[in-house]
Amino acid sequence: MNDPTIQAVLICSPTNTHADIAMEAARAGKHIFCEKPVDQTVSKILETKKLVEENAVKMQIGFNRRFDHNFRKIKKLRDDGTLGEIQIIRITSRDPEPPSPEYAKTSGGMFLDMTIHDFDMACYQANSEVDEVYAMGAVTVDPEIGKAGDIDTAIVTLKFKNGAMAVIDNCRKAVYGYDQRVEVFGTNGAAASENDRETMVKISSKDAVCEDKPLFFFLERYMQSFRDEIKSFINAILNDRPVEVNIDDGLRPILIAIAANKSMKENRPVKISEVMEG
Amino acid sequence: MNDPTIQAVLICSPTNTHADIAMEAARAGKHIFCEKPVDQTVSKILETKKLVEENAVKMQIGFNRRFDHNFRKIKKLRDDGTLGEIQIIRITSRDPEPPSPEYAKTSGGMFLDMTIHDFDMACYQANSEVDEVYAMGAVTVDPEIGKAGDIDTAIVTLKFKNGAMAVIDNCRKAVYGYDQRVEVFGTNGAAASENDRETMVKISSKDAVCEDKPLFFFLERYMQSFRDEIKSFINAILNDRPVEVNIDDGLRPILIAIAANKSMKENRPVKISEVMEG
Amino acid sequence: MNDPTIQAVLICSPTNTHADIAMEAARAGKHIFCEKPVDQTVSKILETKKLVEENAVKMQIGFNRRFDHNFRKIKKLRDDGTLGEIQIIRITSRDPEPPSPEYAKTSGGMFLDMTIHDFDMACYQANSEVDEVYAMGAVTVDPEIGKAGDIDTAIVTLKFKNGAMAVIDNCRKAVYGYDQRVEVFGTNGAAASENDRETMVKISSKDAVCEDKPLFFFLERYMQSFRDEIKSFINAILNDRPVEVNIDDGLRPILIAIAANKSMKENRPVKISEVMEG
Amino acid sequence: MNDPTIQAVLICSPTNTHADIAMEAARAGKHIFCEKPVDQTVSKILETKKLVEENAVKMQIGFNRRFDHNFRKIKKLRDDGTLGEIQIIRITSRDPEPPSPEYAKTSGGMFLDMTIHDFDMACYQANSEVDEVYAMGAVTVDPEIGKAGDIDTAIVTLKFKNGAMAVIDNCRKAVYGYDQRVEVFGTNGAAASENDRETMVKISSKDAVCEDKPLFFFLERYMQSFRDEIKSFINAILNDRPVEVNIDDGLRPILIAIAANKSMKENRPVKISEVMEG
Repeated sequence: MNDPTIQAVLICSPTNTHADIAMEAARAGKHIFCEKPVDQTVSKILETKKLVEENAVKMQIGFNRRFDHNFRKIKKLRDDGTLGEIQIIRITSRDPEPPSPEYAKTSGGMFLDMTIHDFDMACYQANSEVDEVYAMGAVTVDPEIGKAGDIDTAIVTLKFKNGAMAVIDNCRKAVYGYDQRVEVFGTNGAAASENDRETMVKISSKDAVCEDKPLFFFLERYMQSFRDEIKSFINAILNDRPVEVNIDDGLRPILIAIAANKSMKENRPVKISEVMEG
Repeated sequence: MNDPTIQAVLICSPTNTHADIAMEAARAGKHIFCEKPVDQTVSKILETKKLVEENAVKMQIGFNRRFDHNFRKIKKLRDDGTLGEIQIIRITSRDPEPPSPEYAKTSGGMFLDMTIHDFDMACYQANSEVDEVYAMGAVTVDPEIGKAGDIDTAIVTLKFKNGAMAVIDNCRKAVYGYDQRVEVFGTNGAAASENDRETMVKISSKDAVCEDKPLFFFLERYMQSFRDEIKSFINAILNDRPVEVNIDDGLRPILIAIAANKSMKENRPVKISEVMEG
Repeated sequence: MNDPTIQAVLICSPTNTHADIAMEAARAGKHIFCEKPVDQTVSKILETKKLVEENAVKMQIGFNRRFDHNFRKIKKLRDDGTLGEIQIIRITSRDPEPPSPEYAKTSGGMFLDMTIHDFDMACYQANSEVDEVYAMGAVTVDPEIGKAGDIDTAIVTLKFKNGAMAVIDNCRKAVYGYDQRVEVFGTNGAAASENDRETMVKISSKDAVCEDKPLFFFLERYMQSFRDEIKSFINAILNDRPVEVNIDDGLRPILIAIAANKSMKENRPVKISEVMEG
Repeated sequence: MNDPTIQAVLICSPTNTHADIAMEAARAGKHIFCEKPVDQTVSKILETKKLVEENAVKMQIGFNRRFDHNFRKIKKLRDDGTLGEIQIIRITSRDPEPPSPEYAKTSGGMFLDMTIHDFDMACYQANSEVDEVYAMGAVTVDPEIGKAGDIDTAIVTLKFKNGAMAVIDNCRKAVYGYDQRVEVFGTNGAAASENDRETMVKISSKDAVCEDKPLFFFLERYMQSFRDEIKSFINAILNDRPVEVNIDDGLRPILIAIAANKSMKENRPVKISEVMEG
């Protein structure tokens, strides 16, 4: 932190240390790349934000999926008007393997740990703020996750301020692999991405015509997006431009996740304004 | 109705006449094929059901999509255990063209007129009863539909008694045509159907690689299913077997539609038990 | 044949009876629909042609694949200029099951029995006359077919007078079913058809992502084209218009098949002019 | 060449310098990676081979497509018996843009310059030696290429000693991009690869449902295979294992290309034995 030859720090440590390290780095005048989530509480994110602004450092949040080739293409089609006014966003996000129940206990729950990426993706594609959240969850994969107080399967619906609606479906286990699909539907058309596969080979046998399963997990599917987000961060520093995913982008999905948890617990739609502090 | 050479009647008249004609036919001892919905009120459906049972006639409801080749294949995979325990059902159902605002006024609203097919499909695939409904709707296609008191875009989520969850997204207008997709996700895998197209031709040009749009509307897409549901009805009579879609199957989606309307109006999840009469 | 109320005859009898029945029908002034091939000899086809013209009856040949929805779409794209000047035509045509060796003996050989459809398709898509043929064949499916003097696997290349080139690959047995694909490549782009399938369902399991195999055999795949060719024939009579597939279209692929047999036997390219009589 | 710290040389210079540099490197005891083709004459390749063997250095030829993820998967399915006995190999290989007529003049002709990769691919998938070649070529893209004595469009058929047949279709210009597909058909099934695309996004509009064109050209499509072939070469040196593509693999497609040129010129099938020297 005190080494003047170091311009930027990358924070990839456990979640509960993110904000503290970020604030230390901000005070030391270092630019910050911070893995999501910045923190599980709104207050600490706001505190970090204040320090980042006061010290005029750049801070980019690790929502790498914004750099995925498929989702970026959809975003482009959405932004250049090809899709018209956005009406419905559909996100399917399913993992190939559930985490251990131990991990589930400390993860902050599925919405803060896993769906948070999808909340960010929905906002990224909608280009609008979420107004209201309704969440339903269940334990259908591993009863131990349920005993640890978490869920492993969910459907979450979002209402955006610009009138768009979104639905996210999650599951901690899809036997066929990492299922990561986004569809954006608007008044001029729809753009939908299929899963990346290792090869484009189709095998025709006496039983069926088969292709590869989706790439196994996030390291395989999002490898290039991890590279591209770091490139983007470095370019923002070198060219003194705003980062592509800033701390407000880091706060937004936390608020949605908190609202989703409240919605599930109270079995009712919850406004984002209900969970904003101060 | 008094012609003894006639064994069965097919009711394809306006919705508000369905139940009365069906009851007359039941009294006359005729088997009945009745277009959906039997009626927009639960009481009249139950009254019809009573008469059908007292006169021991068969009554099949026109949920033709249960006979669609794609959805039937998914149902088979679900029933034979290929998919395992069902966790999530996703239904996309979008029309190529909105109805006139005049039609919207008398249709009973989008949930009773259009989504009712999707409610039936969700139940057909889940093989369970819906416990709770949450619906959000919007007017994003035609403001006149809004003025007529209806919506044209919606997302509806369903909780089933067996633990499955479902989400339906609807829009009265998709510029690319009739979008009719179903995906069933379970502990052993997922089955998802793409839209039928007129040809399997791909055109590669300097701009893109393109295929046909989905078949235009229900007459094109479901033509074979209309044929097959009538064949099934006739076979049920000829072989004295139960019909494949009975009056209980006709009542169920009506209850869900009524609950969905209540949910949207009161912006809260609504239990089916709240809208059951007597 | 003498019944004046009969306007047309459909000849679906064994190949060696086609020409004789057709000539009888022509003399009786009946319009003729004749299954392919009209005959295995050029002379008899020319004799039939003469009689058909003298008696001013219509004669349509049963090259039903010209009425297939996929191939017709490609033809349309080719004819309306979407594909530009045609450079390469690729046809894959593989059966799900080999014929019995007994059948092979009387069929006139694979080129006259099976590839003849592909020769017609190549000409239909090229819109030109074949100049030269080169054929190679092998027995890779059933040695009994070889003992019967026939082949069961082949690659045939064609040069057209307009400069287009075509390649056909055939096999009497594809374990995954009836493989019927056509691709037309030109200076403005390419159009390629995939096989029709029974459903559009994809199944994702722990092993792979699979879809249905191609429709089983010609009855399943070409059912609609059989209907449409008869409709076309009837319309040609009712509206006194030329038939869509005339006796010249029936002769052309016979000549190519004869040249292909000669090419394979002599292991050299053979000009169509070499096998034309008179 | 005299630097003892250098273990290996990579030869990526113009074709007519390949063999001389390789021989110099062999004499200097350096391992050699050499871009294809080693030379346009058989004698010089054999001379190089002799020196490589005498000096016991490793020499790998730059047939990078053997390292392509799609083709490698097909090869694996072929080698592990999934596809059964190989009957037909289909290769489509079309460039997005023709070379300049100047380049065409010095390239040795399309078969030696472009099809040579496909000849190697056919041998790689067939796992057998070519017995006979038949080639037809045409000028359909650029008349200047014709004036330079070359062709820009071709269909080449191959007979392998193990009974398999192959067909390659080539064009120097496909408006939709770099078309690189391989299909291997055998007694147990078929494996076919589609083109790689930049994204897996489908866009549905009022006109059509479109996906990305193939990746633009070889740098985009084969980038990873270029990396993987070099990794393979380095590993062969480090672990003292045979290279994956040796000088015999470099000679084989040259012989086929020479036979293809002879076949086209003389319009007859040509045996590989006819073009082998001494």
